[in-house]
Amino acid sequence: TARNLFLLPGDGIGPEAMGEVRKIIGYMNESMNAGFVTDEGLVGGSAYDAHGAAISEADMQKALAADAVLFGAVGGPKWDSVPYDVRPEAGLLRLRKDLQLFANLRPAICYPALASASSLKPELVEGLDILIIRELTGGVYFGEPKEIIDLGNGQKRGIDTQVYDTYEIERIAGVAFEMARTRQNRVCSMEKRNVMKSGVLWNQVVTETHKAKYSDVQLEHMLADAGGMQLVRQPKQFDVIVTDNLFGDMLSDVAAMLTGSLGMLPSASLGAPDGKTGKRKALYEPVHGSAPDIAGKGIANPIAMIASFAMCLRYSFNMVKEADDLEKAIANVLDKGIRTGDIMADGARQVGTVEMGDAILSEFKAL
Amino acid sequence: TARNLFLLPGDGIGPEAMGEVRKIIGYMNESMNAGFVTDEGLVGGSAYDAHGAAISEADMQKALAADAVLFGAVGGPKWDSVPYDVRPEAGLLRLRKDLQLFANLRPAICYPALASASSLKPELVEGLDILIIRELTGGVYFGEPKEIIDLGNGQKRGIDTQVYDTYEIERIAGVAFEMARTRQNRVCSMEKRNVMKSGVLWNQVVTETHKAKYSDVQLEHMLADAGGMQLVRQPKQFDVIVTDNLFGDMLSDVAAMLTGSLGMLPSASLGAPDGKTGKRKALYEPVHGSAPDIAGKGIANPIAMIASFAMCLRYSFNMVKEADDLEKAIANVLDKGIRTGDIMADGARQVGTVEMGDAILSEFKAL
Ligand SMILES: CC(C)[C@H](C(=O)O)[C@@H](O)C(=O)O
Ligand SMILES: CC(C)[C@H](C(=O)O)[C@@H](O)C(=O)O
Repeated sequence: TARNLFLLPGDGIGPEAMGEVRKIIGYMNESMNAGFVTDEGLVGGSAYDAHGAAISEADMQKALAADAVLFGAVGGPKWDSVPYDVRPEAGLLRLRKDLQLFANLRPAICYPALASASSLKPELVEGLDILIIRELTGGVYFGEPKEIIDLGNGQKRGIDTQVYDTYEIERIAGVAFEMARTRQNRVCSMEKRNVMKSGVLWNQVVTETHKAKYSDVQLEHMLADAGGMQLVRQPKQFDVIVTDNLFGDMLSDVAAMLTGSLGMLPSASLGAPDGKTGKRKALYEPVHGSAPDIAGKGIANPIAMIASFAMCLRYSFNMVKEADDLEKAIANVLDKGIRTGDIMADGARQVGTVEMGDAILSEFKAL
Repeated sequence: TARNLFLLPGDGIGPEAMGEVRKIIGYMNESMNAGFVTDEGLVGGSAYDAHGAAISEADMQKALAADAVLFGAVGGPKWDSVPYDVRPEAGLLRLRKDLQLFANLRPAICYPALASASSLKPELVEGLDILIIRELTGGVYFGEPKEIIDLGNGQKRGIDTQVYDTYEIERIAGVAFEMARTRQNRVCSMEKRNVMKSGVLWNQVVTETHKAKYSDVQLEHMLADAGGMQLVRQPKQFDVIVTDNLFGDMLSDVAAMLTGSLGMLPSASLGAPDGKTGKRKALYEPVHGSAPDIAGKGIANPIAMIASFAMCLRYSFNMVKEADDLEKAIANVLDKGIRTGDIMADGARQVGTVEMGDAILSEFKAL
């Protein structure tokens, strides 16, 4: 049976990074009989330029039909003043919402070869391996009302609404506990229950879900501001962190930066398993952005995009061995001192996007 | 004319820390003719134990009437399950709201003697001096609806509302630009305009305020998640940061932790100048919490509370020389290697709360 991948390279360095994944897909089809069938579309600024929308209806249909979506990056100064509804980010947000990708998995790992690139003291980040589970289809990102009202007298009012229902908290907590069981079996849930009613509910539902089904997992609660502090102070205290959409946005960026491996970090956004087939809708994307300043120069680091494809192999196709090997290939290339400019170090060999992709592919072949 | 101070020591280590400020006030009255008149009340868990509310009406009246409020800290495990409306934090939130303390000033400075205590590499934090200006009476902290609704079928819905009006953004931006002029003349405004309508309005109003009245100040805009990253990556790039209530809560905690001086950081919460007298309502409090685990042991670090009093001298009473001297006294004591346990270092002399307060007072006297 075919494995259907829909590629959305997007803007900036997205297409260059995606090119390196395409090579790996090609190799896996030829030599490993993987049976990937790929199609490709536009998202973000490039979709706006072509259709006046951040993603076309036709591409949305393809994304909905695919087994997995691989997403590059969106945005750039060219589209800074397009109308709010068609800004590049709108394409990504629509994909998340319409595919119901409620569970965003963001590993913050520190590649040993890069520990010294962190702004933290190396001993605090060496061996760091956190998994942040961010709720991705609820909260202040999508709650209504979300509007700017003209009050007259030159006054306007900007409104956003944070909303969480029990079932939304329950299902993301479930993902966190399940993931924890495959790791160190510890979950830390973060909210601001001392200020937000949605935080009070979050805390209650996580506690009840834990009690009912996952009491074997160690559970801790932390206020999100204290959580930000603790990430900076002693990141290795965490195993799995589960939090809402907005706190997840902030905390996962801080965690990613701590690792010193920002250009290398992947993410997976997953839906619920289908009742009949057990399949989950899924989108995989690098944590980094579109980096318009270096786009088109052939110097972008493709590792986060390739690592996102490794997550795709693992979570969408259960190709565990291949995912492990691809991650190992990345680590091996780094150990050999091959680096793109963003992670350059004394004594390393600096390469461009294509050479980095080639190096990883040839390690992958050798495994 | 008398200078009226209302002291709210609160819970945990609050009373111990406040004791050291009281000594400084006493000295300033006796030897410097400062004319401070102090009164004292209860807030947080201790107010709940006495009156069943997180602050009594009588104490609210006193806070409203005072020239400045000195606030210790609130909360502790003893009150973890009291009803939401009377939880310790409610006292602090009511003070902020009813005194209309919309401008929260949180300096994140790195005391040179403590640079090595940061989890960041010392060269990234040495000499760090950021001022975070956090909007304190709006946003998701106070917007309505704020509630948990029972939807039936075992489902509940938690709702919080983020609301900002033009005038609220204008006045906090004004404070940031004014403060920047006394510093490096640079402001970075942070929001999530790519996701939040309140962020779009925030961005517009800050931009217009800048254009209309403060175009001499350098202004930059940053997405709040990228801002969190940049704080961790290269904190010294910032001078003044202005942001909303919730982002300010998160970002100021991350910034405070970066300095390695968390137990030392003060804050000021200011209202608008009165039309007639020009006076601002004000509350001064340490950034750290009530630290129930070490309360009552005489080992808490009183420096943040004393530094908060220095901010009070500066902003409420225009006693600039005295404020400078008090800050200098703190730095001198640290330079001499006198430390409480939380900031202990090799070769330093460890002291308790009272000794630390005495050491600072005697430096202050000598200046
Ligand atoms: C691009 C933007 C809409 C997005 C978000 O805020 O979720 C990004 O910051 C992320 O974390 O994926
Ligand atoms: C105690 C709590 C309500 C408060 C807040 O969230 O504002 C605290 O975290 C702070 O930053 O002053």
